[in-house]
Amino acid sequence: MEKLSRNSRVVAITKILTENPNKIIGLNRFSELLNAAKSTISEDIVIVREILDKLEMGKVETISGASGGIKYIPRIGNSMAKDFAENLCDILKDEGRVIPGDRIYMTDLMYNPEIISRAGTILSAWFNDKEIDYIITVETKGIPLAYEVARNLGIQLVIARRDTLVTEGPTMTINYVSGTSKRLQQMSLSKKAMKNNSRCVFIDDFMKGGGTALGIKDLLKEFDSELIGIGVLVDNKEVNKKLVDDYVSIVELHSVEESIISDIRPSKLFE
Amino acid sequence: MEKLSRNSRVVAITKILTENPNKIIGLNRFSELLNAAKSTISEDIVIVREILDKLEMGKVETISGASGGIKYIPRIGNSMAKDFAENLCDILKDEGRVIPGDRIYMTDLMYNPEIISRAGTILSAWFNDKEIDYIITVETKGIPLAYEVARNLGIQLVIARRDTLVTEGPTMTINYVSGTSKRLQQMSLSKKAMKNNSRCVFIDDFMKGGGTALGIKDLLKEFDSELIGIGVLVDNKEVNKKLVDDYVSIVELHSVEESIISDIRPSKLFE
Repeated sequence: MEKLSRNSRVVAITKILTENPNKIIGLNRFSELLNAAKSTISEDIVIVREILDKLEMGKVETISGASGGIKYIPRIGNSMAKDFAENLCDILKDEGRVIPGDRIYMTDLMYNPEIISRAGTILSAWFNDKEIDYIITVETKGIPLAYEVARNLGIQLVIARRDTLVTEGPTMTINYVSGTSKRLQQMSLSKKAMKNNSRCVFIDDFMKGGGTALGIKDLLKEFDSELIGIGVLVDNKEVNKKLVDDYVSIVELHSVEESIISDIRPSKLFE
Repeated sequence: MEKLSRNSRVVAITKILTENPNKIIGLNRFSELLNAAKSTISEDIVIVREILDKLEMGKVETISGASGGIKYIPRIGNSMAKDFAENLCDILKDEGRVIPGDRIYMTDLMYNPEIISRAGTILSAWFNDKEIDYIITVETKGIPLAYEVARNLGIQLVIARRDTLVTEGPTMTINYVSGTSKRLQQMSLSKKAMKNNSRCVFIDDFMKGGGTALGIKDLLKEFDSELIGIGVLVDNKEVNKKLVDDYVSIVELHSVEESIISDIRPSKLFE
């Protein structure tokens, strides 16, 4: 390939970094792909890093050593993230969100890639330096968000199921009690799904009593693994006695009146 | 903000485009964010478009008119896509993939963001110009892949469930017969999940007899909606009588011998 201009090289480098979050990419790879010396690529990377920093669009870190290179860490600037959370509050305040039993309909949001990709970036930034091995969730609604967090952290997703399937091989099943309804429930995870002695973060759509999170904690014990953190889209603050305490959310629901969410705010993450 | 260099502007434009696939972004937005005239931004965009074209990293299209702007269409070059499919075949040939009942364990792959993000780009490119309104899947294993295709196409994901949940509101439930086991199964979709008269693509992990796909087709009829296409990661060619015919896959499984996948190849997509 002929030589490319610096403009062209920085475009290609930005594209590759954005699509490979938290993966270490050796300078050789850029050097070969873009037909340029490693010293030239290093200068390109400085340009990419500086503008992403300035616009609060993420960080580019240099990892030294034999297996070194650069890696891109997704991040959304605080004011943009807060705007996002406020917008989410407005959407949730709409009529029709509260369905019989004072439950909140938010499936459409959980399956909306524009919302979930941003929420995933915000949550992943929170856990980025905590050396997490797996993101875990339980089917179904939290899966896209959990996937986004895993993708941003460059790690494997693990999904506990409520049934057991013949295509999963030997499976570990536990019982747990949901935090609010006190109903006995079950979740299962294939023994193949994760290595023992792992550090995990649980991602879900909604935090109410915390029963599911406690169930995940118990399930992880069976894999000699640890629950390092919890992240959810919406934290229901109407339930103030939770079974778990260490978690983050994007928005906090404070009160529902006459089938309308009357008080919902961005979480403490944005203060 | 002070003026930015062209190098810096093309980095920011590339980042924003990559993160907003198939969304039309007005030049105004770039112009304001980057403090540059629209004519300057237009020149920047030409640079971004040309290098992405040259490296087969996606397309940048110009949409004219009042609500016009540019949009980025994700794409992976054919030789890179074929390498990806061949690598996937190698992984699937590993011992231990075939579990009792001649079923294939591939949950780890379906929950691996590095694999699923690429597979999602390949499948989305296939459906990109078909004016799709929704990506639909049925829980659980196909969800991350379906989410990726939806994200790449900039559209909403819809997930049919095997149970019915109280947080979904009124729900449509259908029965269907799985293509190979002939077992009667059920799937449900909330009436709120999609608008009637929509064009949908079904995404799943595995195509065997096609019973699930046929079930989705029937379910969509209840929403006066149409199944426009089907995309799966693995097509099991050992079952040659399928209940549906119009679908694409990434790899084709041709034979399993003594609990090892002995013949598996990239699909016709890469020929």
